[in-house]
Amino acid sequence: MSRQVILTRREVFSSSHRLYSDELSEEENKKIYGKCVNNHGHNYVLEVSVKGVVDPKLGMFMNITELKEIMRIYVMDKLDHRNLEGVPELKSIVTTTENLSIFIWDQLYPHLKQHLYEVKILETENNFVIYRGE
Amino acid sequence: MSRQVILTRREVFSSSHRLYSDELSEEENKKIYGKCVNNHGHNYVLEVSVKGVVDPKLGMFMNITELKEIMRIYVMDKLDHRNLEGVPELKSIVTTTENLSIFIWDQLYPHLKQHLYEVKILETENNFVIYRGE
Amino acid sequence: MSRQVILTRREVFSSSHRLYSDELSEEENKKIYGKCVNNHGHNYVLEVSVKGVVDPKLGMFMNITELKEIMRIYVMDKLDHRNLEGVPELKSIVTTTENLSIFIWDQLYPHLKQHLYEVKILETENNFVIYRGE
Amino acid sequence: MSRQVILTRREVFSSSHRLYSDELSEEENKKIYGKCVNNHGHNYVLEVSVKGVVDPKLGMFMNITELKEIMRIYVMDKLDHRNLEGVPELKSIVTTTENLSIFIWDQLYPHLKQHLYEVKILETENNFVIYRGE
Amino acid sequence: MSRQVILTRREVFSSSHRLYSDELSEEENKKIYGKCVNNHGHNYVLEVSVKGVVDPKLGMFMNITELKEIMRIYVMDKLDHRNLEGVPELKSIVTTTENLSIFIWDQLYPHLKQHLYEVKILETENNFVIYRGE
Amino acid sequence: MSRQVILTRREVFSSSHRLYSDELSEEENKKIYGKCVNNHGHNYVLEVSVKGVVDPKLGMFMNITELKEIMRIYVMDKLDHRNLEGVPELKSIVTTTENLSIFIWDQLYPHLKQHLYEVKILETENNFVIYRGE
Repeated sequence: MSRQVILTRREVFSSSHRLYSDELSEEENKKIYGKCVNNHGHNYVLEVSVKGVVDPKLGMFMNITELKEIMRIYVMDKLDHRNLEGVPELKSIVTTTENLSIFIWDQLYPHLKQHLYEVKILETENNFVIYRGE
Repeated sequence: MSRQVILTRREVFSSSHRLYSDELSEEENKKIYGKCVNNHGHNYVLEVSVKGVVDPKLGMFMNITELKEIMRIYVMDKLDHRNLEGVPELKSIVTTTENLSIFIWDQLYPHLKQHLYEVKILETENNFVIYRGE
Repeated sequence: MSRQVILTRREVFSSSHRLYSDELSEEENKKIYGKCVNNHGHNYVLEVSVKGVVDPKLGMFMNITELKEIMRIYVMDKLDHRNLEGVPELKSIVTTTENLSIFIWDQLYPHLKQHLYEVKILETENNFVIYRGE
Repeated sequence: MSRQVILTRREVFSSSHRLYSDELSEEENKKIYGKCVNNHGHNYVLEVSVKGVVDPKLGMFMNITELKEIMRIYVMDKLDHRNLEGVPELKSIVTTTENLSIFIWDQLYPHLKQHLYEVKILETENNFVIYRGE
Repeated sequence: MSRQVILTRREVFSSSHRLYSDELSEEENKKIYGKCVNNHGHNYVLEVSVKGVVDPKLGMFMNITELKEIMRIYVMDKLDHRNLEGVPELKSIVTTTENLSIFIWDQLYPHLKQHLYEVKILETENNFVIYRGE
Repeated sequence: MSRQVILTRREVFSSSHRLYSDELSEEENKKIYGKCVNNHGHNYVLEVSVKGVVDPKLGMFMNITELKEIMRIYVMDKLDHRNLEGVPELKSIVTTTENLSIFIWDQLYPHLKQHLYEVKILETENNFVIYRGE
């Protein structure tokens, strides 16, 4: 009997950013993003979930150390202790949590493929975003 | 390419209530609701999630300050620091977390429409309820 | 060699209350206590700490099950799932977290004596009070 | 109008285990499970979710005390403060969180039937698994 | 009988910073502060504690709304959603959590005087600093 | 002006143990330690605090990476993912949280000396112990 589970790894990265769109005027930026137009920062909590059929012999379908390693290479090393505006791949996008969750999905997808189930980012304890590849 | 994310805002409201159904006898109320028939209270943690396609220019589909404001007007101002039995719209219902989650959904739906994805309430750290409009 | 440790037990009680002093006018009550003059409630997190010299044979100086039992009898059974205004011993006091912490200290002291070290109450995740018998 | 909610009960059990598969060599076990081949332990956080249509008269579809009792009998009493390797039903499986979530689902299903919606286990604050009966 | 309690207010501010001392060489900065020499950020959790004798009539010695307001004016408005390097009063210091806790103490002391008991800052969930004016 | 701060590092180790004293009869062990006489386990949360005068040039008195390294060598590597009964230095003691906090103090003291201020261990979210070298 094949059983499908969802496995999640949680990591925290501490980055700075500002919300500012080059396609908007200074005034529009301030109106839309408020105090977030200033450079500031967060301890972003990242939860990446993968889904797959458990191998009965091993009791897993992907080793969580492998998931952790993929997250380290493609996300943590790029974003942790960085100014997000300085990350080359993020240069052309507004670094809202919404866009970050999509960016992280796109970073991970080539390595996790159809197993990738969900990317969740908590920007603060009160604001969070989920992206499921839809 | 259109990408759909789920955005969640967390708020806490501190309210009192009792579980008591007028359609039940005193004895039945005690049997079903136990010590919850007494007036008591909670720090209710409310998580409201909305779902929508991200505008690439803005990096969001709904401004979280807008979501926060809608939650403030239609939920927080009505329920926070109140006795739920004294809230007019709640008079005829038993204020279980189940009913509260449906009530909050109904309060928010006219203002968030098809974007409203999920209402989650944690009554305590051990008991919580999700309503998704089904 | 005698070693002194501090042992803490955490419990949660869900109670309702209002802040209202009979010695103040209606207007003064509203000015001082704000929206807290309405009946509302909290999941109060209570942390009771005791201090003592560890018995090397047992690896403890007080069994935490004993501490838990004392807290149950003298605090939890009196306050949990209650309206604090209806608790006889609390009738004459304003049930601020400050007064609650002192009240709980006084409830526990006869049973824990010089071992009682600290009573901490978190009214919400943002507001808390410590009383150490000073 | 029938409304379907998801109700969740959270419990914590403190158990020990090791990850070791009899179908693998000593070397393979160490390579796959790393330091988890040693006997060690966790405070497992278990969240069991049930789904059903709310009875408007009672404001619930299943009493959470009933859910809690089912979890106590079929999960907590079997696993809490135990070495998982010593639990008869777990003897033939590797006690990964993945397998535990499936095991707990199978324990609860006969008693919750189609109401059972999700079993979530947090092994640590950074690693967790969800099983939804798929 | 006079009773002294400790009252704590918790706030969160989201700021960016880098650790870099002008008195050190580039190389020394990297060696001492590691990846923290890059501009990055945190959700700093700030807990300010005040100590005083409870007024029996009011059940408090300082209104927590007053404490919150003092924290807003002298700390939150200056640091939240800012790059700490751009805060004039912080220009000449390395913005370690140690220095921040002392800075915040010095900001608050003129307004809370002998009531000020403790400033605690959690930079991350794993690293925190307490300053008590010693 | 010399300023003294308290710096804390939090780590989590996942270990198994049982509470059992060789100096007690089987019956006494069961009576005193209850279900803890069975081999079981915890995610122990360890918070080690050091106290010292901040160097104004560096903004710290001890680098937290140094503290983390000392904790890794003298505590984490010895206890994490282990059965505490199998740790040579713990063989002759009952591994209560009280004794563990003293043991960890004694492990760290030679390396942190007078800076060592407090060892706190949370065995579960509800039970914790502090040892301050008294």
